[in-house]
Amino acid sequence: MNNIFDNIPECLDSELFEELIQNDKLKIERIISRGHNSLKSNWYDQDQNEWVMLLKGEAVLLFEDQSSIKLKKGDFINIPGHKKHKVKWTAPNIETIWLAVHY
Amino acid sequence: MNNIFDNIPECLDSELFEELIQNDKLKIERIISRGHNSLKSNWYDQDQNEWVMLLKGEAVLLFEDQSSIKLKKGDFINIPGHKKHKVKWTAPNIETIWLAVHY
Repeated sequence: MNNIFDNIPECLDSELFEELIQNDKLKIERIISRGHNSLKSNWYDQDQNEWVMLLKGEAVLLFEDQSSIKLKKGDFINIPGHKKHKVKWTAPNIETIWLAVHY
Repeated sequence: MNNIFDNIPECLDSELFEELIQNDKLKIERIISRGHNSLKSNWYDQDQNEWVMLLKGEAVLLFEDQSSIKLKKGDFINIPGHKKHKVKWTAPNIETIWLAVHY
């Protein structure tokens, strides 16, 4: 048994992606951000759907139509495959912990 | 967007199972318990694997070999298909919120 809030690195040069479960049907991962965003990167444009929930912290997702959505603890959203998105903002001084299910 | 901690019923005669995502590959569900257990029911004996995380509350899972495991907020465990288990105990006075991914 593990705990989703354990083993948070003190130093995070970039967002941290950790696979919790991976098989041919799905991937469950924990993502940790601390002030990171992906504005300078390409859009996330994924073949699979992504169900994502914020477990701690705060974040803003940006979509290709320039709409954005703010997420706080417990908020979840389903992002269909190929719905382009970026991470616009995450809280700067605390870690933001995401649970993502790619399916 | 929804929040996993919202819309908790005041009265829970039995555990509440709510599908968040369902397709032919996986099901993501929220389960709410408040003092419930499944000791008088048959073992859960599922074809699919189940990845489960406790988001609030406390619970004890019992396995067929009589081992048990206590879960608190943030704890997660992967239960392979056909690993028989029951819910032995959940906290009596607060709701216990589970996130389960069946895959």
